[in-house]
Amino acid sequence: MPELRRDPVVGRWVIIDTEHTKGPSDFPKSDNTPTRQAICPFCPGREYQTPNEVGAVRPSHSLANTPGWLVRTVPNKFPVLSCGGFLQKEGYGVYDQMTGIGAHEVLIENPDHDKALVDLTKDEMQAVISQYQERFRQLSRDSRFKYIMIFKNFGSSAGATVEHTHSQIIALPMVPKTVLEELKGAEYYYQQHGRCVFCDMISQEYQDKERIVMENNSFLAFCPYAPRYAFETWIIPKGHSPDFAERDGAISAHLAQILQDVLIKVKKVLADPSYNYYLHTVPLGQANGAHYHWHIEIIPKLTRSVGFEWGTGLHIVPTFPQEAARFLRES
Amino acid sequence: MPELRRDPVVGRWVIIDTEHTKGPSDFPKSDNTPTRQAICPFCPGREYQTPNEVGAVRPSHSLANTPGWLVRTVPNKFPVLSCGGFLQKEGYGVYDQMTGIGAHEVLIENPDHDKALVDLTKDEMQAVISQYQERFRQLSRDSRFKYIMIFKNFGSSAGATVEHTHSQIIALPMVPKTVLEELKGAEYYYQQHGRCVFCDMISQEYQDKERIVMENNSFLAFCPYAPRYAFETWIIPKGHSPDFAERDGAISAHLAQILQDVLIKVKKVLADPSYNYYLHTVPLGQANGAHYHWHIEIIPKLTRSVGFEWGTGLHIVPTFPQEAARFLRES
Repeated sequence: MPELRRDPVVGRWVIIDTEHTKGPSDFPKSDNTPTRQAICPFCPGREYQTPNEVGAVRPSHSLANTPGWLVRTVPNKFPVLSCGGFLQKEGYGVYDQMTGIGAHEVLIENPDHDKALVDLTKDEMQAVISQYQERFRQLSRDSRFKYIMIFKNFGSSAGATVEHTHSQIIALPMVPKTVLEELKGAEYYYQQHGRCVFCDMISQEYQDKERIVMENNSFLAFCPYAPRYAFETWIIPKGHSPDFAERDGAISAHLAQILQDVLIKVKKVLADPSYNYYLHTVPLGQANGAHYHWHIEIIPKLTRSVGFEWGTGLHIVPTFPQEAARFLRES
Repeated sequence: MPELRRDPVVGRWVIIDTEHTKGPSDFPKSDNTPTRQAICPFCPGREYQTPNEVGAVRPSHSLANTPGWLVRTVPNKFPVLSCGGFLQKEGYGVYDQMTGIGAHEVLIENPDHDKALVDLTKDEMQAVISQYQERFRQLSRDSRFKYIMIFKNFGSSAGATVEHTHSQIIALPMVPKTVLEELKGAEYYYQQHGRCVFCDMISQEYQDKERIVMENNSFLAFCPYAPRYAFETWIIPKGHSPDFAERDGAISAHLAQILQDVLIKVKKVLADPSYNYYLHTVPLGQANGAHYHWHIEIIPKLTRSVGFEWGTGLHIVPTFPQEAARFLRES
């Protein structure tokens, strides 16, 4: 008998397809070995091929837009939103529009073309997280922006068009739909129970244990009870924390460690799949975050969404989260 | 300058990527020519390879599960929801679950393996629509079901696993998320304005004209102002009509005609792409439909959703809807 499960935050139901469950080896493989160093615009020595850098982790004596960097952030050469100009909103009969003001940056995670995130040293991985935080803080000072989205596409089937390891940051003039839904759901739960729904989820994950992948001093990694995708995994601060920007040094080291460790497990169990992850945090300038809790959602790209999912918002998931967690935990 | 546009029903924003706009020939091609008749379980003479039929359009003298049918509906051999048993709901700490009760049927649209929907005669196409209505009515009598979703995946990249032309019908024990969002948005609009938001959209489409693809006596086909996908096209009854099940004979002939004509245009303009369509209608037993309006959404499968879209719910669309509509209209 298939099972329907409801996400406690946004109220989304998912179908766990118990008749055709899939283990790690039942998904099509993708080849994500890097190859084309000769023409890569993200490699050191080709800094002139990107727009001028807006941020970097590099020794104090080294010059911007020259080699020597450990992490380097540049505006996206093909931005989906434009940085210049004013935000103009306009009604158009029953419709609304606004100018596509925003920022779209590429964060080159390491100078070495042949390294993926999972290959970085502990220090290199920490530099990535600290650059995430630095760019987040910088962009959040621009009053035109309401939300900053940090995300990563790894592998061509997850949408990566350049293979040199990188993340992306987009600053938006409005709060995106999925975050709004989480905020509303979390607020509703808070009104009913006086507690953060994410904190309650964490308690229950510790009680049930079976969906936990790993933990460290500051973070928990688990496969959510009602996932949208097979092997979907979340990383969440154990203590209540609405805002990603508030992290301190020690905690960001813990984040670097658990994010890399989970990605290593994903690579091992699922044969180096393409994946996406993105960070959900409280919108900029939203003071009262009692009900919200920032987190990272990691989604290995194993299946394709089809018409039914688009038409319903109802995902069909071929792997129980407790099974996915067991594979990842034991790897 | 990119443009942000807001859907007036659910409040979803989309980015129109004006810097890298794409015309019909800029998308990757897919080959959707049928090939494998020799092993097809949906072909006449192989009725024994499917579960027993639950509905059909066939001459009154012909026997169930034998050749002679024009349209034939059978339970899906690999259903995502199970038809037998009771609906049981259970709380599980902060989480909720219910048994995966439902129906999952396959509607074989024509006996001819080499025909796609666009190749059917007028009468054959009408038989498909009347079978949609018949199965919808039948399934809606089961009090365990709250919603019936009719949808079609055409082409392997849209998720079709059998190439013989077919649609699918899924009966669900709850109203799916995307429909709930439309209902809520439409209700909110109705409270504010006392009018159906879809009816207002139709008025504005007639006023603006540029997004209209075609029309007939009963239906309008247009590319929505804030689409999620390039060349997304909706078909909607011109008069206010909440419920798909209420259609009469004349109107279903008009639906058959406009649906097929739009699919012919999509095939012509986009070189026979894979596509999905699905029907959104008022949930079962929901008496007051003053604010809702049933419609079909057609989505050519031209691009892939990636991490950014999953994380934000914010789609990046490379084609202006008025451009898409112009190509379709003039084809």
